[in-house]
Amino acid sequence: MSTADLFVRDIRELATPTGGKAQRGPEMAEVRSVPDAAVLIRDGRIAWAGPASEAPAIPEDVPVLSAGGGTVVPGFVDSHTHFVFAGDRSEEFLWRAGGLPYMEIHRRGGGIRRSMDATRAASLDELVAIGRRRLGTMVSLGVTTVEGKSGYGMDLATELRQLEAMDILGREQPVRIVPTFLGPHSTPPEYAGRTSEYMDYVIRDMLPAVKARGLARFCDVFCEKGVFELADSRRYLEAAKAAGFGLKVHADEIERIGGAALAAELGAASADHLLKCVPSDYEALARSSTVATCLPLTAFVLREPYADARGMIDSGCAVALASDLNPGSCYSQSIPLIFALAVLYMRLSVDEALCALTLNGAAALGLAGEVGSIEPGKRGDLVILDAPSRAFLAYHSGMNLVKTTVIGGRLEYERP
Amino acid sequence: MSTADLFVRDIRELATPTGGKAQRGPEMAEVRSVPDAAVLIRDGRIAWAGPASEAPAIPEDVPVLSAGGGTVVPGFVDSHTHFVFAGDRSEEFLWRAGGLPYMEIHRRGGGIRRSMDATRAASLDELVAIGRRRLGTMVSLGVTTVEGKSGYGMDLATELRQLEAMDILGREQPVRIVPTFLGPHSTPPEYAGRTSEYMDYVIRDMLPAVKARGLARFCDVFCEKGVFELADSRRYLEAAKAAGFGLKVHADEIERIGGAALAAELGAASADHLLKCVPSDYEALARSSTVATCLPLTAFVLREPYADARGMIDSGCAVALASDLNPGSCYSQSIPLIFALAVLYMRLSVDEALCALTLNGAAALGLAGEVGSIEPGKRGDLVILDAPSRAFLAYHSGMNLVKTTVIGGRLEYERP
Repeated sequence: MSTADLFVRDIRELATPTGGKAQRGPEMAEVRSVPDAAVLIRDGRIAWAGPASEAPAIPEDVPVLSAGGGTVVPGFVDSHTHFVFAGDRSEEFLWRAGGLPYMEIHRRGGGIRRSMDATRAASLDELVAIGRRRLGTMVSLGVTTVEGKSGYGMDLATELRQLEAMDILGREQPVRIVPTFLGPHSTPPEYAGRTSEYMDYVIRDMLPAVKARGLARFCDVFCEKGVFELADSRRYLEAAKAAGFGLKVHADEIERIGGAALAAELGAASADHLLKCVPSDYEALARSSTVATCLPLTAFVLREPYADARGMIDSGCAVALASDLNPGSCYSQSIPLIFALAVLYMRLSVDEALCALTLNGAAALGLAGEVGSIEPGKRGDLVILDAPSRAFLAYHSGMNLVKTTVIGGRLEYERP
Repeated sequence: MSTADLFVRDIRELATPTGGKAQRGPEMAEVRSVPDAAVLIRDGRIAWAGPASEAPAIPEDVPVLSAGGGTVVPGFVDSHTHFVFAGDRSEEFLWRAGGLPYMEIHRRGGGIRRSMDATRAASLDELVAIGRRRLGTMVSLGVTTVEGKSGYGMDLATELRQLEAMDILGREQPVRIVPTFLGPHSTPPEYAGRTSEYMDYVIRDMLPAVKARGLARFCDVFCEKGVFELADSRRYLEAAKAAGFGLKVHADEIERIGGAALAAELGAASADHLLKCVPSDYEALARSSTVATCLPLTAFVLREPYADARGMIDSGCAVALASDLNPGSCYSQSIPLIFALAVLYMRLSVDEALCALTLNGAAALGLAGEVGSIEPGKRGDLVILDAPSRAFLAYHSGMNLVKTTVIGGRLEYERP
């Protein structure tokens, strides 16, 4: 069964967004739904997808997989995670569940500092082993492409080690990994009170080192009041852009200081979080090429109001949804819970949520031409759901419906 | 490996409530936590549980299972579900996600009527097959005891068929099933506008038939304004009690009409939902033997405020948490999401939530002497979590951590 050719039949519903670019505003609801469908994958790429009655002749050497009357959707693209970190912060989670605010924990150094210490202390092999386990969980949730950020080193050696771990994992296991450098995640203790000096160091020493090793596709910054203000964020992002990196921005999560507008201005691939954005920000994003990435699991865990994804879509934005898996504010990679929150609490339709977790997630990684939909020429990434229709992604609330995950035409996960 | 004897070692943390009865108020937080623990099961019952260094000599014929450094907790008890139903109501879910209120859907007949039609049309074999699949999902979530209600027939033949399906499932598969008769779930179309006459029929014809066949341990009623008012609920519950059934009550979910107080007065095993209860109700429940069962997944799906489980515990109640799995208001059996909601949105501690999903769930089924904790004499039901401590039940939010489910000393689920 494990081959880059595959014919999937007995699909009760095939549901996929379409196109090679981000879908904006009302386009997000234009999902193609095909009843009684089939999909042909050749050499790891989608060769054909449509009604089973119109399927082309299948060569004898192509393995056949029955979807068992389930629903097939594109592999999920989790376009914002911090999945390579050591240690845990379960104690801090319980503090916060008991009422302590996020920035207060941040200021106490009990937050990211703990993950930094654990990650600095972890060897490359340990980081690879940790990441491997988390990717195994992701593939069981139907994730076929994942972004991963550095940012728990905040020194050159550890930042490079996190990225190297992703590089190794990208070659040894099937989930496609898009690495992002997030050196400016927080100011490390060595630079306490000298945030701009740390940023000087990041721009002068870290960026060129990451570039030279080819270990990251994107650069990201935690642009937030009291973390990295707008001016430092801007000079960093401009330097990263000049060096040829794509840009991503943690923007306007806790206070609105203009991160989303900056991302739009600089043509970032995505602006992420956006809890405190206002309609003029949505309009700036809608006019730009920047995907508006909402992270509902983080809002859920932090008990914050959800980002106004509805307003963003209605303003014409391309919205993506992602997990934000990280040890502090959101230790969750639950794709099912993202669907439930999007439909029940963010007023997205199932089709909008599906587009946001597939094609628009791909667009937030500059990969909308490669993955994110089931269309000829795209990679053969798809998920078979144990459900009669895509509505069950929200209706069967919080439940993992994934029966089979296919990556590049290969069966990489099958539920027992 | 599959035997009723089992020695579980390499347990980083064993966490269990203790006692043979419901834990009330502050007792709910008194979880026994043992680091570096082991558990011995003989003949399907817990024989010993404690620090590995104090473990008794293990007879050679007892299979040994490594918990791999994970956390062991009692098997979860889901004490309120409607898991035997046919059809689905995904369309209605999408209507409601779009804003239509629950009672409005109920009044339109688009609600429970649809499940009734599908369940009446389903054969016994079909109901067994449907239930079998749902139980398979439950055991993968660590559920080892589940309550199941009839109530989608609202005619004698179908109500008996639902209960018979549970009886068959209870004998053929490992999850322990506690059957509840819920004939008065809604008024069927044959009795439209004649609710009290339907209740006459339930009391006169259905109750004795269920009793004669020995198919239910409890009787339940949907006591709600516009469904079954207090007077009809009372006479039904009194008749059920006189016939020797235990009592359960759907109480004060949508409007406060006195269902919780009635449950307490009659010594019901549980009063369930309780969204609209007030402190005087908590006090009535605290003085009674009735477990206060909260169903956070339903509130989550219906976007209702959560039941005030914190206030109930602080008033001295025994609180249980359960899924309410059903086709309408809550198509979810996600134990992980219950933990996340309890800790993040209902202000329970992890220990209180653990007690509520194990020992107090057992008490809500009259089984606190049999299951719900890992103590000598109780059934050998336990779950091995892929997590270093019980805090991860909430910290790893919404994620299924179950690696292995053991029921009566037998391995009934192992994650691939």
